[in-house]
Amino acid sequence: MLLIAISCSDKENRKKYVLVIHGGAGTIERASMTPEKEIAYKQVLEEAVQVGYQAIQAGKSAVDAVEATVHVMENSPLFNAGKGAVFTHEGRNELDAAIMDGRNLMAGAIAGVTRVRNPISAARAVMEKSEHVLLSGSGADSFAEQAGLEMVDPSYFYTKDRWDGLQRALELDSVEAAQERKNHQASSLNAQMIDRKFGTVGCVALDNKGDLAAGTSTGGMTNKKFGRIGDAPIIGAGTYANNESVAVSCTGWGEFYLRNVVAYDLAALMSYKSLTVQEAAARVLKKVETAGGNGGLIALDKHGNMTMSFNTTGMYRAAITDDGKVEVYIYEDE
Amino acid sequence: MLLIAISCSDKENRKKYVLVIHGGAGTIERASMTPEKEIAYKQVLEEAVQVGYQAIQAGKSAVDAVEATVHVMENSPLFNAGKGAVFTHEGRNELDAAIMDGRNLMAGAIAGVTRVRNPISAARAVMEKSEHVLLSGSGADSFAEQAGLEMVDPSYFYTKDRWDGLQRALELDSVEAAQERKNHQASSLNAQMIDRKFGTVGCVALDNKGDLAAGTSTGGMTNKKFGRIGDAPIIGAGTYANNESVAVSCTGWGEFYLRNVVAYDLAALMSYKSLTVQEAAARVLKKVETAGGNGGLIALDKHGNMTMSFNTTGMYRAAITDDGKVEVYIYEDE
Repeated sequence: MLLIAISCSDKENRKKYVLVIHGGAGTIERASMTPEKEIAYKQVLEEAVQVGYQAIQAGKSAVDAVEATVHVMENSPLFNAGKGAVFTHEGRNELDAAIMDGRNLMAGAIAGVTRVRNPISAARAVMEKSEHVLLSGSGADSFAEQAGLEMVDPSYFYTKDRWDGLQRALELDSVEAAQERKNHQASSLNAQMIDRKFGTVGCVALDNKGDLAAGTSTGGMTNKKFGRIGDAPIIGAGTYANNESVAVSCTGWGEFYLRNVVAYDLAALMSYKSLTVQEAAARVLKKVETAGGNGGLIALDKHGNMTMSFNTTGMYRAAITDDGKVEVYIYEDE
Repeated sequence: MLLIAISCSDKENRKKYVLVIHGGAGTIERASMTPEKEIAYKQVLEEAVQVGYQAIQAGKSAVDAVEATVHVMENSPLFNAGKGAVFTHEGRNELDAAIMDGRNLMAGAIAGVTRVRNPISAARAVMEKSEHVLLSGSGADSFAEQAGLEMVDPSYFYTKDRWDGLQRALELDSVEAAQERKNHQASSLNAQMIDRKFGTVGCVALDNKGDLAAGTSTGGMTNKKFGRIGDAPIIGAGTYANNESVAVSCTGWGEFYLRNVVAYDLAALMSYKSLTVQEAAARVLKKVETAGGNGGLIALDKHGNMTMSFNTTGMYRAAITDDGKVEVYIYEDE
């Protein structure tokens, strides 16, 4: 009887979250942040959750809320997605995104687009206007254009900050190449990790009908080569939503998320092992860490339980409850 | 005591498989097959499993066995992979492949290469010689070239049979377009399904050390557009291997395999719900079918239990036991 009483009381006090976002996990430390920059990040994060919340309050679908929310972060130069995307080795911006509808497991994703202003909308168009799940490269740009999305000149994605980031990465590359010639062995991992940007953005939402959706959008990895695709546009790795369990969006060192099928593994641990969303998130992040990777994720279950988990020094993140209470955090000790 | 006795006897009689392959699932009916064609398919399937078996017998790794086996099917014009790849809408051959090592969850994949003779080897090079998991487009070709793989002129992938297949698909496209203009509604799915080729190839292997590996290689879907990527090169969807559970390679209507994260779901059902490989395969294929998709898969667990499951009228498939007994099948009633 006591146990039941505690459980009921716990339920009554429990907050019900309806929308959670991340703006990337990584090495984010107070020492390297100015008060102005901190405020700027928090403002965009707050605006993003408010936009999604308004959509949900207006009776729109979780998919609508995810798209509207991600737009805010894609349109900001602060995050590695849309406008603020990092540069590839060749000095281009190649963007990836995915969206999934928990109602019916429909999903859409694009990899390596260069002309779509809002990649999350291109992902949604793939989901709703094609028979496909994943389109890539210039073909994906063509599809988005035919679907009537707003196209931009690739120069739209230029920001000085990201360009400087590429130059630093290229310098490291040549230092590393010299080192390699000397050592006759690859040391690429460490050097490339130094300026790796984990600024993927993502959103998970629970609408008034109890439907879940998840979306993720990214510019990928600074100095990426060879048409590298990370976990963000891969259903099951960086993005997953299923009304029966959970909506998930990941951010971090994509290769580890791909090998560990992180987003779907979290859902499977909830469905098959009855873990809570927090327990499942801890379990999958432990696998990533054990394998040598790092990053974070957000996940929201059908009851409004959520987690914003990461094993880096920070993750830009925010959440809003069904009664409109906003939480915005950056560092690990918040 | 009786139960234990039965269990022991069952174990003694049970075959231990070490290598299983598929050459694609789809509409494969005796009525549309000539005896010569049937023999030709079965010969390549038998050769493929024998090559993999020799590798295992020689003490090579499961990854080596998978690569060698897939080469045989990639080098045959009969299967939709490597030499026999289908054509895209633009009349090109864009090849996808993935390989995964069950020992350490390392994985490599390429999507949309046009000049690599053996895509499975490009996937392996990504796994072993890069820090990435998935490379795409011309970047993936460049990587493969730098990795020292055999490159070919794109014309190498021309076969009259596949070219004719594209022409039929294009005709259907224009019929369908006319229909759409008339009906003001999309009917693309049915029309495109008619000549859809499910000829992906795949292999799962269990070596002498008890290590598992999986590999999949494909030309994708006839008449594919917009840089479409299917499930084959996606870790967790079309390809997965983990020594703790199972190695899986899928073939079928890729979009349904992507949305259902089929290969990893099978592994999760074994790890988290203790299902047998056959039970798990039946469960995941049921999900694909319920969602409106079809296809098949092969899976091999760490004990040598395997399944070759599909919900189409046929799947080119073969398996070999640790004592060298070969099974080769095509139709569902075999």
